Amino acid sequence: MTTIKDVASFANVSVATVSRVLNNKGNVKRETKLQVEKAIKYLNYSPNDLARNLFTGNSKMIALLIPDITNPFFPELASSIESAANEHGYTLILCNTAGNQSKELTYLSALRRKCVDGIVLVSNTLDSKQILESGIPTVVLDRETDFDITSITVNNYEGGKQAVRFLKDIGCDKIAHIAGSDNISSTKNRKKGYIEMIKEDPWIIENLIVPGGYSAKESFKSTIKILTTHPDINGIFASNDVMAVGVLEAVKSLDISVPKDLAIIGFDGIELGEITTPTITTMSQPITAMGRKAVDLLIKKMQYKNDEISSEVFQVELIKREST
Amino acid sequence: MTTIKDVASFANVSVATVSRVLNNKGNVKRETKLQVEKAIKYLNYSPNDLARNLFTGNSKMIALLIPDITNPFFPELASSIESAANEHGYTLILCNTAGNQSKELTYLSALRRKCVDGIVLVSNTLDSKQILESGIPTVVLDRETDFDITSITVNNYEGGKQAVRFLKDIGCDKIAHIAGSDNISSTKNRKKGYIEMIKEDPWIIENLIVPGGYSAKESFKSTIKILTTHPDINGIFASNDVMAVGVLEAVKSLDISVPKDLAIIGFDGIELGEITTPTITTMSQPITAMGRKAVDLLIKKMQYKNDEISSEVFQVELIKREST
Repeated sequence: MTTIKDVASFANVSVATVSRVLNNKGNVKRETKLQVEKAIKYLNYSPNDLARNLFTGNSKMIALLIPDITNPFFPELASSIESAANEHGYTLILCNTAGNQSKELTYLSALRRKCVDGIVLVSNTLDSKQILESGIPTVVLDRETDFDITSITVNNYEGGKQAVRFLKDIGCDKIAHIAGSDNISSTKNRKKGYIEMIKEDPWIIENLIVPGGYSAKESFKSTIKILTTHPDINGIFASNDVMAVGVLEAVKSLDISVPKDLAIIGFDGIELGEITTPTITTMSQPITAMGRKAVDLLIKKMQYKNDEISSEVFQVELIKREST
Repeated sequence: MTTIKDVASFANVSVATVSRVLNNKGNVKRETKLQVEKAIKYLNYSPNDLARNLFTGNSKMIALLIPDITNPFFPELASSIESAANEHGYTLILCNTAGNQSKELTYLSALRRKCVDGIVLVSNTLDSKQILESGIPTVVLDRETDFDITSITVNNYEGGKQAVRFLKDIGCDKIAHIAGSDNISSTKNRKKGYIEMIKEDPWIIENLIVPGGYSAKESFKSTIKILTTHPDINGIFASNDVMAVGVLEAVKSLDISVPKDLAIIGFDGIELGEITTPTITTMSQPITAMGRKAVDLLIKKMQYKNDEISSEVFQVELIKREST
């Protein structure tokens, strides 16, 4: 790799002179400048991070850490963040963490060395101390963290309540819940909303909450099991759309008619819910607006050194489709 | 940002001494070493790329450039590459290029500055000269490029032929094709395979090839259109599984029975094809093996400076499901 030293030695000038030319700062004779530029071209030199950071203070790169690239919600979120970042002249790199704390920490440390300008983080394992230690401006997206860091979330608790209220409004009187993990604030709060809405129902002594493992396959299995034990269930609230797809396939495989005999509602608003038969009703998150907001807040931190900590909470919206 | 110079000045030693401590090389007095380590800890110093590269010659990071993060094929491929990379002690970063040449070049140049050790590239716009110019060890995946660079692909032409042959074997005598773009070698070759298989059919004068835009929605529209014009079509080969899902939904919306009146086959073998009703027959790519091979070949280039150019061609496999 060509270094700034090589350029200096080739051009027969000091490293400081090369840096002045690179940054167009300070007094450099025209002739010397041409000499340095020739050396840069000849050696195919590209200023690396250290140089670049010493000189300009930024790399024009943002990293996005997401827990599961195979759940379409995150690619859709990544696309919206990428568009917003590109509009501001930033390039986005993606890091898939599998929600694994040691992978998350490895990324944070690697990104720090790589001098990424900012980070958008979706994590349910790190606390704000661990995040702030990296020293890189960061906003947390999708999942609540403690309060020392700027976050963008949706009102998952209210969304959960609204989903169940809607199922009740259309006549469901025994509603099951396909849940995410209690370690993840977003799905934990959706479950809380579900519990709040059903706590006075006569069948409350039976536990109608089953785990969906964030996958259509897991959710398929759990749905088959709970519908076999409780054939009188006539509404299911799945904690995300991917799991709602699993519910739908399970219900169809049992020859139960949707929505006549059983209604299904998901959460997220990903495109997948529009291509199933029937299409799936969902509590839709404003994915584009959230991505845009994350980038806006990050830009303020990166470019204007804004230290303010804010919590943006977006509202989810009921989108009625054929499954209810 | 703390630099190696700050550490040296804080510890009252030379930069060279700090570098010897960082890399555990050369003779450094125990006392001096402790002093440097104290300075590193106190200043929260993390060696950046330049330092790290000068010292150890690698960043232990691989980048993967993919054209469309919202097509589940690429997240599945990324996951397999990530597992293989992690096993070798490498961290993977993902770059979503939208198949846009200027974005691809921006990434290559940014990654070069960031001193990524290697790149796995899925691109249909760059030639090998542009790729090799970055100076970073690179393997090309999924799409054929010219021959100056190591590539991992599947036999798309044979796969296309096999898909159509299977539809004929089960009795389809009028087969349409939902195509990708001719700019992309993989889907272009699948189309070639289709054409080869139908070129002697009596209905060849009618053009039954329609564009699917790599999305379920586009493919849905194209399918409705072609089935309205040609209601006697009884088989459809979609150039990828996402488009096959669009075909399935379109066919169902026209109340045509699958597979009784019309059979559908896709390409890729993504999980999505297993959760539709009916499940979708596909020409499956060995996604895990391809990802693993890409990392293996890249490791050879990165660690053993292997300059050999190879072309690995994997075979696709017919997976029969309910849509045929």
